[in-house]
Amino acid sequence: MKIIAAITGVSAYVPEYILTNQELEKTVNTNNEWILDRCGISERRILKDKDKASAFMAAEAAKTLLAKKSISPLDIELIIVATVTPDHVYPATANIVSDMIGATNAWGFDVQAACSSFLSALSVAAKFIESGTHKKILVIGSDKMSSIIDYTCRKTSILFGDGAGAVLLEPSTDDTGIIDTRMYADGSGKKHLYQAAGGSLIPASIESVKNKQHFMTMEGQPVFKLAVIKMADVAVEMMERNKLSADDITYLTPHQANKRIIEATAKRMGISMEKVMLNIQKYGNTTSATIPLCLAEWESQLKKGDNLILTTVGAGFTWGGMYLKWSY
Amino acid sequence: MKIIAAITGVSAYVPEYILTNQELEKTVNTNNEWILDRCGISERRILKDKDKASAFMAAEAAKTLLAKKSISPLDIELIIVATVTPDHVYPATANIVSDMIGATNAWGFDVQAACSSFLSALSVAAKFIESGTHKKILVIGSDKMSSIIDYTCRKTSILFGDGAGAVLLEPSTDDTGIIDTRMYADGSGKKHLYQAAGGSLIPASIESVKNKQHFMTMEGQPVFKLAVIKMADVAVEMMERNKLSADDITYLTPHQANKRIIEATAKRMGISMEKVMLNIQKYGNTTSATIPLCLAEWESQLKKGDNLILTTVGAGFTWGGMYLKWSY
Repeated sequence: MKIIAAITGVSAYVPEYILTNQELEKTVNTNNEWILDRCGISERRILKDKDKASAFMAAEAAKTLLAKKSISPLDIELIIVATVTPDHVYPATANIVSDMIGATNAWGFDVQAACSSFLSALSVAAKFIESGTHKKILVIGSDKMSSIIDYTCRKTSILFGDGAGAVLLEPSTDDTGIIDTRMYADGSGKKHLYQAAGGSLIPASIESVKNKQHFMTMEGQPVFKLAVIKMADVAVEMMERNKLSADDITYLTPHQANKRIIEATAKRMGISMEKVMLNIQKYGNTTSATIPLCLAEWESQLKKGDNLILTTVGAGFTWGGMYLKWSY
Repeated sequence: MKIIAAITGVSAYVPEYILTNQELEKTVNTNNEWILDRCGISERRILKDKDKASAFMAAEAAKTLLAKKSISPLDIELIIVATVTPDHVYPATANIVSDMIGATNAWGFDVQAACSSFLSALSVAAKFIESGTHKKILVIGSDKMSSIIDYTCRKTSILFGDGAGAVLLEPSTDDTGIIDTRMYADGSGKKHLYQAAGGSLIPASIESVKNKQHFMTMEGQPVFKLAVIKMADVAVEMMERNKLSADDITYLTPHQANKRIIEATAKRMGISMEKVMLNIQKYGNTTSATIPLCLAEWESQLKKGDNLILTTVGAGFTWGGMYLKWSY
């Protein structure tokens, strides 16, 4: 019998400090109404502590999850961290997290696919469960976006926030779980959304720092245009592939990049905004953490058998969707 | 019937420039005899072109592989790049490679687990084949280590080189392919081998550049000690788990970090050095490229059904082994 991978627990961590639109108004030429209208964001969380980064937030989310589920960290076999802001270039943040939470039996690695890192990592983890070799996997999305954002840039500083979310993946005991996944990429989109320096093409130098090349470079229009089309396309594709009507959908769980992209996706799916997990107003775009942050916030309202469509879009370009029957 | 994932092709790319021990003798306080005796390295390749990095080498290896196999890039469904030196922090190098080689139907992501990135990525790819959802996956290990090495540091400058290797993974048509994989991590090893800056813990700054924190930091002794034990342990474990005697082993394909680590592993396995793929003398440690560089070099000598043990060890710490029945 085919093994299905099921999310059996979810938890989140966001730092305490709240960066409001009003505070941003003081440093960059923007205003609350414009940000709210164009992006749907009121505030985002920022990890102010210089000694803490993505691994810390990932470990906090994971510890809460293990406590909630009464699972020993020793039972975790694999930790996959989705992140574009790893603590270090190497070793993997997954290994650092395993040490932080005492998951000494877990191997691990990081998955990077920009804003699609979490859904990519979740689809990877699902394969390890489906194959029967692994029974307990933590998939954690964690990003300290404030470490790569130029807070004098009004295009990007308003959009991003810090946070982490963790899910536990186990073999399903029934027909619920991850039913279908479709992922896509178009590498020609690189020029529109990237971090120029800090990789092997432009290693860190005094010049690259002075040129602000370690911050995000984004051309908003082509990214928005691609995102609004592709996220809706893949959401509709997931419905068609799995013969789901709008009425069958309990929730859309979209990557939180921009409220307008999400609204356009809901419209194409024919579902009302009541069926959309949306918390971008509180957290902004936390990159790898958006989807688990939504799942954690809506967890108490979810019922076994609920039909969820998860969607992602991001730099690369990358995009994709997942159809999930909720397991508890 | 269980689907087995098989390597059905392999190819490599190394840059032309050869950095010899003799050249290193001129810049750091070291000498040819010491390097040869302690590490087994005579020379390494360096990608001198400033406009080219890991994605370029990965694409070169991939293009050669597709040409050899007469496969259209359009048939590739997924590209996984193993690297600790991605071109950019984001988007994923896998997406950049898909654009470079015209694999417009492939989605992709990067896997990072330090020197164990390639074996981790290969084990991930195997799961996508085993589950039946994917039929043609490129797994590419590529690292421009020269972008993160301080060539005034005599500990690390002698060890590393640049290169890339690619394998094609397809469903096996018989009982050959990837039979068994075991991966491990010990995150407490971080302090011995890492890149301090360039991640979210120490973002790039003038200070971090001046402090040389974007280069590799390595304490040789604890890394060597761990590596020599763990690589041998996991090689022996793979033999025991799969009831393989020393006579059954056709080749050991080890990560090329240090000749002495590899010799110790062969000794523990009870196999002679004739059964060991060793090319560290020519390339040094190319991190994610070592294993496919070996497979590409030995390809013409391999026969269908040959028993290969692949082993890895690296920062994290991470280590692991794979038992592979060669498929062609």
